[in-house]
Formats: sequence, C-alpha cells, structure tokens
Amino acid sequence: MKLLLINPNTTQAMTDRLERVARTAAHPDTEIITLTAPRGVPYIASRSEAAIAAHVVLEMLAAHAPSVDAAVIGAFGDPGLLAARELFDLPVTGMAEASMLSACMLGARFAIVTFTPDMRAWYSQAVALAGLERRFAGVFCPETHPEDVVGAAERQREALVALADQAARAGADAVILGGAPLAGLAGEIGHMLPAVALDPVSAAVVQAEALVRLAPRGACLGSFARPRAKASTGLDPVLAAWIAQTKTGR
Amino acid sequence: MKLLLINPNTTQAMTDRLERVARTAAHPDTEIITLTAPRGVPYIASRSEAAIAAHVVLEMLAAHAPSVDAAVIGAFGDPGLLAARELFDLPVTGMAEASMLSACMLGARFAIVTFTPDMRAWYSQAVALAGLERRFAGVFCPETHPEDVVGAAERQREALVALADQAARAGADAVILGGAPLAGLAGEIGHMLPAVALDPVSAAVVQAEALVRLAPRGACLGSFARPRAKASTGLDPVLAAWIAQTKTGR
Amino acid sequence: MKLLLINPNTTQAMTDRLERVARTAAHPDTEIITLTAPRGVPYIASRSEAAIAAHVVLEMLAAHAPSVDAAVIGAFGDPGLLAARELFDLPVTGMAEASMLSACMLGARFAIVTFTPDMRAWYSQAVALAGLERRFAGVFCPETHPEDVVGAAERQREALVALADQAARAGADAVILGGAPLAGLAGEIGHMLPAVALDPVSAAVVQAEALVRLAPRGACLGSFARPRAKASTGLDPVLAAWIAQTKTGR
Amino acid sequence: MKLLLINPNTTQAMTDRLERVARTAAHPDTEIITLTAPRGVPYIASRSEAAIAAHVVLEMLAAHAPSVDAAVIGAFGDPGLLAARELFDLPVTGMAEASMLSACMLGARFAIVTFTPDMRAWYSQAVALAGLERRFAGVFCPETHPEDVVGAAERQREALVALADQAARAGADAVILGGAPLAGLAGEIGHMLPAVALDPVSAAVVQAEALVRLAPRGACLGSFARPRAKASTGLDPVLAAWIAQTKTGR
Amino acid sequence: MKLLLINPNTTQAMTDRLERVARTAAHPDTEIITLTAPRGVPYIASRSEAAIAAHVVLEMLAAHAPSVDAAVIGAFGDPGLLAARELFDLPVTGMAEASMLSACMLGARFAIVTFTPDMRAWYSQAVALAGLERRFAGVFCPETHPEDVVGAAERQREALVALADQAARAGADAVILGGAPLAGLAGEIGHMLPAVALDPVSAAVVQAEALVRLAPRGACLGSFARPRAKASTGLDPVLAAWIAQTKTGR
Amino acid sequence: MKLLLINPNTTQAMTDRLERVARTAAHPDTEIITLTAPRGVPYIASRSEAAIAAHVVLEMLAAHAPSVDAAVIGAFGDPGLLAARELFDLPVTGMAEASMLSACMLGARFAIVTFTPDMRAWYSQAVALAGLERRFAGVFCPETHPEDVVGAAERQREALVALADQAARAGADAVILGGAPLAGLAGEIGHMLPAVALDPVSAAVVQAEALVRLAPRGACLGSFARPRAKASTGLDPVLAAWIAQTKTGR
Repeated sequence: MKLLLINPNTTQAMTDRLERVARTAAHPDTEIITLTAPRGVPYIASRSEAAIAAHVVLEMLAAHAPSVDAAVIGAFGDPGLLAARELFDLPVTGMAEASMLSACMLGARFAIVTFTPDMRAWYSQAVALAGLERRFAGVFCPETHPEDVVGAAERQREALVALADQAARAGADAVILGGAPLAGLAGEIGHMLPAVALDPVSAAVVQAEALVRLAPRGACLGSFARPRAKASTGLDPVLAAWIAQTKTGR
Repeated sequence: MKLLLINPNTTQAMTDRLERVARTAAHPDTEIITLTAPRGVPYIASRSEAAIAAHVVLEMLAAHAPSVDAAVIGAFGDPGLLAARELFDLPVTGMAEASMLSACMLGARFAIVTFTPDMRAWYSQAVALAGLERRFAGVFCPETHPEDVVGAAERQREALVALADQAARAGADAVILGGAPLAGLAGEIGHMLPAVALDPVSAAVVQAEALVRLAPRGACLGSFARPRAKASTGLDPVLAAWIAQTKTGR
Repeated sequence: MKLLLINPNTTQAMTDRLERVARTAAHPDTEIITLTAPRGVPYIASRSEAAIAAHVVLEMLAAHAPSVDAAVIGAFGDPGLLAARELFDLPVTGMAEASMLSACMLGARFAIVTFTPDMRAWYSQAVALAGLERRFAGVFCPETHPEDVVGAAERQREALVALADQAARAGADAVILGGAPLAGLAGEIGHMLPAVALDPVSAAVVQAEALVRLAPRGACLGSFARPRAKASTGLDPVLAAWIAQTKTGR
Repeated sequence: MKLLLINPNTTQAMTDRLERVARTAAHPDTEIITLTAPRGVPYIASRSEAAIAAHVVLEMLAAHAPSVDAAVIGAFGDPGLLAARELFDLPVTGMAEASMLSACMLGARFAIVTFTPDMRAWYSQAVALAGLERRFAGVFCPETHPEDVVGAAERQREALVALADQAARAGADAVILGGAPLAGLAGEIGHMLPAVALDPVSAAVVQAEALVRLAPRGACLGSFARPRAKASTGLDPVLAAWIAQTKTGR
Repeated sequence: MKLLLINPNTTQAMTDRLERVARTAAHPDTEIITLTAPRGVPYIASRSEAAIAAHVVLEMLAAHAPSVDAAVIGAFGDPGLLAARELFDLPVTGMAEASMLSACMLGARFAIVTFTPDMRAWYSQAVALAGLERRFAGVFCPETHPEDVVGAAERQREALVALADQAARAGADAVILGGAPLAGLAGEIGHMLPAVALDPVSAAVVQAEALVRLAPRGACLGSFARPRAKASTGLDPVLAAWIAQTKTGR
Repeated sequence: MKLLLINPNTTQAMTDRLERVARTAAHPDTEIITLTAPRGVPYIASRSEAAIAAHVVLEMLAAHAPSVDAAVIGAFGDPGLLAARELFDLPVTGMAEASMLSACMLGARFAIVTFTPDMRAWYSQAVALAGLERRFAGVFCPETHPEDVVGAAERQREALVALADQAARAGADAVILGGAPLAGLAGEIGHMLPAVALDPVSAAVVQAEALVRLAPRGACLGSFARPRAKASTGLDPVLAAWIAQTKTGR
C-alpha cells in the first residue's frame, strides 16, 4: 500500500525525521511518500498556525489523495484531520488522535509529554475534541519554551524522562511523546519509563495501515458524507476542483 | 465603538442580510463595518469549507483588527474563532458560541434549528467544542437539503416553526435559529414559538459589545497568550506580518 | 432601560459598592435601581444562607419586577436565579453565571478566585449547576477565613493577585474575582494578572443589557414557562399575588 | 430511633399519605413524627415554589432537629436538602436523591415516572445536581397536567403503568414513581412492571435509617461544615438562633 | 432477615473481621451468615484477581442465594456484583458501591483512602463504572505497599488519618476507608477526621437491609432481567444448574 | 507474528467463523492460532456469563501467552480484557474495544448494531467502561431474541441492514456489527449501508497487529503493572503459577 505522510510544517528536516520514524513503524510492504508544506510556519505551535495549516493540508491532499491508499497528517494537533476525512475518500490519520486511541488499548489513562508549555492549550483541546477526557491524565511539559525546537529530543531527554515519570505517578499507564520534534524518541527512551511510551507518528502510521485493511473504498463515502459540489472563488485550483467535484478521487 | 462584522462566505447578499440584522441588535452608538470573504465558497456548509474559511478569516482580521474595537465572525460554526482570539488582541465573538452562551441565561437547555441536514455534524461539534453538551437538546432540521439556500428563511418558515416546536417539546427552553440564511428570522417568528427564539448574529453582536465593556485592552494579551513571533512562508503578507509580530495591533 | 440591582445580603455598604461598579460597567443610558435585602444575613456564605436569600429575592422581585426591564442578583452564588427566571417575565442575570459565561468567550477555561475557603463548595456547585465543569479550572482561595469580610478586597489584594497567578498557571485563561466584597477589584488589579480578570457584577450588568436587546418581552413566557396560578398560605402578600397570578407583570 | 418526616407542601392530606407509606417502609422500631408546612403552596410544582419551600423547611428543622435522629424531606425535588445538611448535624434525606441512589443499586439506569409534565425541568435538574446523569434514562410523564393532583395515583394508574413500561423499554432497569401524590403507588403497581418500581418516600425513610446506623453524631460536623455563627435580620427567631449558633443541636 | 456476607478472599481471619464489623452495623434482627472463598487468593488486589473472584462469587451465591434475603460481597472492588444482580433475584450489595452511594447522601464529594497504591487503578475503575466521577475526589493512599496487609489498619493508623485529612482538604466531604483490611477502622478513627468517615462493610450491610425493605421479591426479575436458560460445559454443577434454570431461587 | 485468537464461547463452529474472518483481515505474515473455551456457555450473552468467561480467558492465556506475540479476545463484550492486560505482558485486544476505537478514526460517532436485545445492557456498559459515551450513538437491535443465534447473520440480514440505516440516520457515522455470530457480515453488507460498516473481529486483529508494532516487549510491564506474586488456592495450576510468578512470560 501507498501511504502519504504530510508534514504541515515547512521544515524539510522535520519531514526527514518523521519519515525515518514512520519507515521503522510501517510494514515493509508499505510505500511511504512524504510531502512538506509549501506554505506556513516552520513549526506549528498554536491554534492560529494550525488553522492556516489545515487549509494547506487540504490543498496537499487534493493534489495527492487520488494516488495513495491512506494519508497521515504529521503534526501532533492533527490540523485539518476532520476536514480531510470529510472531503477525501481515503483513510486519514493524525498523530494526536492515533496515539491517543492506541494508548486506550494499552492502559486505563494516557498522558501527553511534550517539550514546551506553548502546546498545552492546543493539545488539551485535541483531547476534548476526541471526547477522550475521561481517559486523559494531563499534559506534562517543562515550564519554559526551549530555544532549540528542532534539537529538543536530544537536549531535553533527561527532563522528558522525568516528566514521563511524573505522568506515570499521576496515574498515566501510557505516555505519548507529543510534537514532531520528539518523533522517534519513544523508541529510544521507552525502556527507561514506568509507563508504556508511545510515538505519535508510529501510531498514525500503523493506524493508517489498520484502517486500510478495515475500510474498503466506497464505504468511506457514507460516513463523513462528502459535502455537496460547489463553485468557489480564489482557491488553489486543485482544491477548488475537488470542492466542485470536477475532480473526484480514485 | 467600532464593530467588524466578517462574513466568511463569499456571498455579498448574505453580508447585507447579516448587516441589517446586526444593525437592529446593536446599540445605536455602535458603528458596524462589514467584510465579505474574498476567497472561499458562497455558503460554508461543512468542516472542510470551514477549515478553509478559518484561514481567510485570519487574513481579514489581520488587515482590519487594528482599526476596530471588536469583531464578529458571521457564520454559524464560528470558523477561526479560537485561532482569532489567540492571534488578535480584541474581543471576537462567533454566531454559534454567542447564541449558545446567551441561551444558557434564558433556559436550562437550548436546541439549534436549521434549514438543512448538512449542518448537523458541524453544529454538534461546535457544541462539544464549547463544552456545552449538558445544556444541549439537539439539532433539529428538515430531512433534505433545500434547493434555495439564500431564500430558506422565507420558503421554509412554516417548517422551521414546526421544528422549533418539536425542539421545545423535546425539552429545549431556548431555540437558536442557526445558519446565516436564517439571520433575523428569530425576530420574525419568535412570537409563534413556545420557547425563546435566539438570533445568532444578534447574539454575537450584543456579546461583542458586552465583552468590549468588560475586557479593557491589554488584559486580552494574558488570556489566549499570543503565539511567539515567527517567520513564515507563502502566506498573505499582512497575516505574515502579524505572525512575525512586525505588525502588532492597535 | 431600567435595571434592578438586588443585593440579597442585608449590608447597605455592600449595595453601595455593587452600585458603583455596576454604574461603571453599564451603558450610560441604563438606569440602575438598587435594593438591599430587608431580611437575611449581612453576608451570604453558605448554601443555607443562600436558600433563605432565594426566598427573599423572589419577594423583592415580586415587588419591583413590573417596573424594570431586567434584574441582576448581586450575590456570587446567584440565590434564586432559576426560580426568578421561571416566575418573572424579564431577563434576570446572576453574578456567578454571567461571569462564567462571559469567561467562556475570553478563554478556554476559567477559574474563580475568592477571599475565603468558606465559599468553595457553594461556588463549585454553581459551576456544576451551570453544566460548565469542562471549562472550569477550580476555586482558588486563601486557607483561612478573613476577619474582615467587607475590607477583603483591600487587605488581601496581594494574596488575591498571587492566587490569580496560580490559577493562570493551572490553566485558567480567565479569572473571575468572585464574591460581593471583591466587586470592582478586577478593574483595579487586572493589569497585574497573566489572565483576563473578570468582575462578576460588571458581567451580570452587561449580560442583562445584552439579554434585554435579544429577548423581547413575551418570548420569555415560552422558555421557563410560568408555573400555574396557585393559592398559597402565609407568604408575603405581593409574592403570593404573583404566585396566584392576580398580579402579573408589565 | 425518631424520624422527622417534613411535608414542605401545606396539604395535610398529603402528609397523612406520606406518613402511611413511610410507616410501611420503616423498621418497626422507628418512631415517625410528621410536620406539614405552615407556609407555602398546597403542592410544590416548580423551582420558584421549591425555593420558597426550602426556606420553610429550614425553619421547620430549626424547631425540631434537636429532638429527632434523622429527617426526611417529603417532596420529590428535595427542597432545602443540601442547605439542611449544612446547617443541622443529623442525617437528612430527600425523596428524589434517596430513590435515585437506591435505584443505582438495583439496575444500571433509572427513570422517573410522574403524573404531570410540569415537573420535568425541576426533576431533571435534581438528577444533574446529584451528578447522576450517566445513570438516568429520562422523565416519563403524560403530556398534560391533570385536573386532580391529589387523586393522580388512582385516576392515572393505567397511564402511569404504560409510562413505566415505556421507560423500561427505553433502557431503565428501575422506575421511580416521583411526586408526593404518587406516594405508595410503587407497592401497588410494582408487580405489573417489567422494571423494579421504587417508592421515593420509602426510599427516603430506609436511607435515613441506614445513615443513622452509619454516621454517629459528631462525624456529621466535619462533612458539610457548619457555617460560621452570624447575626441575622427579620428571620424566624428559632432559625435565626440556629444561624447565630445560640441554639446548637442535640 | 438473613444476610449472606461473602468474603471473596480466601483468608478466614478477614471473614471474621468483616463479620464483627457487619454485626455492629446490622439491625439486631438481622442474621448474618458468612462464607469464605474456597478458591482464589488470600487478598484480592488487582483486576485479574477480581476477575477470578467474580466467578467464585457466582458459585458461592448459586449455592446459598435461595436460603437468604440479601447478600453482601465483602471485597472493596465488588467482584461479580453486576453479574450477581443479573443472575440472582435477591438484593446484592458491594462494599465499594454501597459506601460511595451512601457517601453521596453525606456530602458533595467523597474520597477513597486505602492502605496501598496497588488498589488505585481498580478502585478508580469502580467509581467510573458506577458513573460517580463527578462526585469523586480521588484515591488517597501511601506511596508503597505495606509488608503486612492484614495488620494494615493497626500499623498505618496515623498515616491513614493523615491521608483522610489530606482528602478532606482536597474537597472530600466524606472519606471511605476502602479495602477489607481496614474494615471497622472508620468507627475507630472517625472522630479524628474533619470529614465523615465511612466503613464500606457497614455501608454494604445497611444498604442490603434497606433494599430488602424496598424491593419485594419478584420485582427484581424485571430489572436486571435474568439471562435465558442455557446449557453449559465444565462449570460448577450448582452454578450450571442455576444458569440452566433447573434450579431457580427461593 | 503469532496471534492467539481466543473464543471465550464453547462453540467450535463460532471459532471457525471467527478464524475465517480474522484470516481475511490479518496481514499475510500473521499466523493465527485459535482456541475455543473448554468451559462455559455456547454463546455468552450476559454479564454473568461474561464474568465466568473472564476467568476462563485468563486460564487460556496463562497456557498460551508465552508462545504468541499478541492475543485477541473473540467475544464482543471483551470478557477478561483489562484483567488480561494486567496479568500478561503481551498486547491483548477485544472485539468491542478495538472496533469502537477504530470507529473513532472513521467518523464522529459510532453505533452498535446487533441481532438480539439481550446484549443491550452489556454492550452499553462496554462503551461506558471505555469512556467513549460522547462518541456513542446507541445500540440498535431487533425487539426480540432470535431462535437461531448461530445463523443470525444470514437470517436477519435484511433487518440488520435496516437497523444500520436507522443508526446512520440517528447520527452514527460508523456502524459496528457486534456479536460473534455477525463476524464477517460487515464485509458482506458494508456496501449497502450509508455509514462505514465495521467488523469487530477484523478490528481486533488489525489493532493487535498495530500494537505489536508499537509496543516492544518490556514496555508493557510498566503500564498495567503486573500484580504482586501471590500464592493461591484451588485455581487452575497454570494460572496459579502465573499468579505466583513461578511462570513468567516469554
């Protein structure tokens, strides 16, 4: 199967990191195709940046959805996830949702550990939107934003282990290491934690593979029913064609 | 005070209708400035269209926020509302949120009555996002989408009264007539209903006025803390300047 | 418009303070009429005192509702609020409810900061009754009851700022300074806080004004349907007449 | 043990009915003392009437609490229940709360069946206040208010059986026959229902007996901590003495 | 009445302790018959051990239910409680559920204090299963498991008082001393606590007595409807006969 | 990888059906080993039967867990699932949980469609236990229990399609066809439904595969911490050895 891994951030190095981790988690048969956002910010860290990214994610999917079996949105707050499910007829997973739902099969409650306090509100909102508050033990993060976002996984390793420990003592059976800069870290520090460590991009990849096996094409049409065809103004032509249903999937 | 009324749909006639209703609800001292979305779809009716609109709303606010006291997002699902609150330091209200919260002061439970089944999922999600499910009696709508969206308020009047009646019998003390095409209808049919009828654009306007009186400038900076300054790629220059904080408010 | 500001406490000095703050928040056109409870306790601080006050509030409203456009119940736990909405056909707001709902338009979560631990249970119950627990970050208060309740705003200022700070760090985007003795304090210390500070009496006033604009007379009859006419025994004659519907509003 | 059964309604015939049913449920050792409200309405059927009754219940308890072991509030919405628990140091139960909590030990979900649509809002609020919404299957009642409230149990018997049946089919394992006029009906029609029938006054009596065995005096002081002593104005002298703590319990 | 007190643990000394406490709480008329699990572990402290115990509890009930009026499951997580209610037509109570529901009549929120961190997950799950999370203030326990489980009540007394104190300060009006080794402790240390202390086995006993008075035989048939008769393989013959309905109750 | 598929029912034909469906969903590399319960009932349809099955599931896992990579519990209410996760250090999935969590990635709300009203209470409890009530649209089932359980999928096909349709119109985006006798039906009737159809055994299989990729051995030790080693009495020797930790995993 072909899996599209979309990085809604504009940083190519982050895409490379996500791809490496995704490759490890994916089944050997799975072909992974990556895309980096052509517009937006280097690293999404707020609801406003995510709102912009959601639009760009739809544009990227409009261009590539017809040629893949499933897509992964590679930013932890899942910008554009529900919108994408509605507009495109292939399984789409997001790092936050996929890791939270996977965590629900590995413990009673999960926590999110991340590298900056900036994400707390946005991540908590993702939990609420998923209706998973009763399984949620909180966001655990350092008190200040790091200078070096890209190198956070390496530089903050000790602090992140301590935060995961604190999350476990607060009742979390599973700890999600959230945020694209921490991609792959769960595999490296998992053995040091008293709780199951979950890597969000790995979770999004294995869940996309799982959905492909479960949800044959067409069925998706029924669920998140595709919006009516519409003319539009000033949008990216490929996305506009998709909305107008002059271009409609596989 | 100056109030910016943003129509995230591209239909000018809808803007005109919203403005007429807003004018009636607003205090005579309030100056209302309207904007129609330069990009997007004629009438937003899905999560994907709302995701695109959220981006456009941010662009419109970036251009006009510095010259007004408050803003109203004039589409019922409130595209871009939380993102706008985070990025701009003025009160911003949305038709769905403002009418739901107002309804909470007029009864124990509220319902949303609208003209098409297309909106059910998106509207229900707005209730969940606001954390108001315990006050919610449901979405009541016809079973099929009308051919004429713009004329819905006039053509479906009888059916909408019947739906509101049904909502009241299902336990709703207040009925929100949701969707921009129904703007102003509450004032016209309210006396025919057994429940309080609420007009969303009126609610958004009076709540924006209320917030301006409550929340002096500056205080807003603290709440939805403004995201860190960032460079960006390929965005609308005014929005990009706002994100880069090279242009920062009033 | 004419706004009735009811102080359910028997302390006239508290009424004067509430009036001063209300006057600042209200639109210049709004005429404010104040009443101090003729029976009850100097300062309501428990569910039992609030239960008594609810009865007195209904008596006060029975006497004055016909001559005003809206009423504000000036005690933070809103004694008699839902009962009043049911019995009288004018908008009635309460300090707790109005400030909580206003806070929901200024941030994701709100906290209540107050001057005594005595109020914790009653205030938390107000949040639950409003169905707003998912937006609530907790009550923050000193560990002991102050000797001087009336002077709490002045004497505890530093401690209250620290509590608000603590509330903000615990995830509150907005902080409600609850309790009549703190009326007006938000305006004075708001600039020192990392979160939006909300004054409850101001919120109750601007929300009462907002509801007057939204809910024309008559509509209220439908929502909280007026109880059937009834004879009664031993009640205040004006309230009894209201319950018997021999005296019925404007 | 001595059990005080307070009827917050002013109708003596209703007190007599409650007493008969209570006598059947109580242990033979239990002495039951009844009181009928000296002020108020013949039959409480709204939040405003309940608010008035709460005050009267406190007055009645202030006069009699010192001479009994426990008290039952004999109106289904439990007027004054939480206030009474706070002010007096004896177990106090209410018909709604006691029957709901008993129902939780007899099935997964309970419903309330009653004889008039007037009670729906007030009863639903009692469920929410108890935090038991997840166990609640709804209020089931006829569409119109009966002319004869006192004779409802006899005249509506068939209709009430049908409503209980409907409640059971909607998932209720236990059905509470709510409202003082239906006191004792559960014992008469229980064998005709597919669900367990619960009589609220019986539940309130057996729960009061149970609490007396569980909660020795003194312990109660800790829980709902007694409010501070206070002077008051214009209140019933016995209640005022209680609030001033110049008269304090057994 | 005859009350069956089932100890799902295999420790006879624990049964003796439970019986002593039950005897104190029960009405003098109540005859208490005890049973100790013939299979299982000395002290259940996990979900897997409770799963095994649930089966054994059903076997014990199959053998003895016909000869008693009610049964109490004497382990705090209530192994087999819902299953027992479904299969047998007599009131069955459990220590956790009965004490939580009793606590709801003595305060707004309850906490569970116990002697080991091992129980935290299982006890929290019991609260969730009962749908009582909104009334729950948390599990309070020492950080490490004691060497001496049976003697925990005596050896940890001081620590348990401190934990109960901490629970009260965290907002618990009632404190449940959970876990069979703590049976009876509430009566001994209750006077030292700022909150109402509840003994679970006492609560289970008085609630079983209360249900017997409320729920006449037969009515139970309707609620948790008895599963259809079935053949089975390899089960305890008495339990198998019960499932096959060749042996059916009193 | 080796996947253990446990049928907690004693019917071999049901195991065969589950295996056929599992084989279709599983990756070609996955080896599937099936087990049929040696004790219990032919088809589990109640909480009491599930309680017995939970014990048997633990015995089956004790015997086979060391030789496989993951296990699937093949009955829709997931008997023994949480207990198994606690006691064994391999991923274990259940048909109900896995299909509900998968459904959360395919739509906003899911419904369960099944072939008998007998399962309603047990299935609803599974949703509550998973904390997924906010995503749940209800159980949809025929009004009477079918005579032929094993042939339900074939005989009731039309009725089940109608129920799924009704579920979709009630707001379900995804429909889970629950109950072992319906295994595989989703693949056959999915194209006839307006919502995504989900097969629970397929979901449990693909999720078990996904977890194996995500959760390397050892990590599981931390999450659902293994209970302390214990002596036991009268249990199956292999399970007893596991509980005594004289036999411990792979």
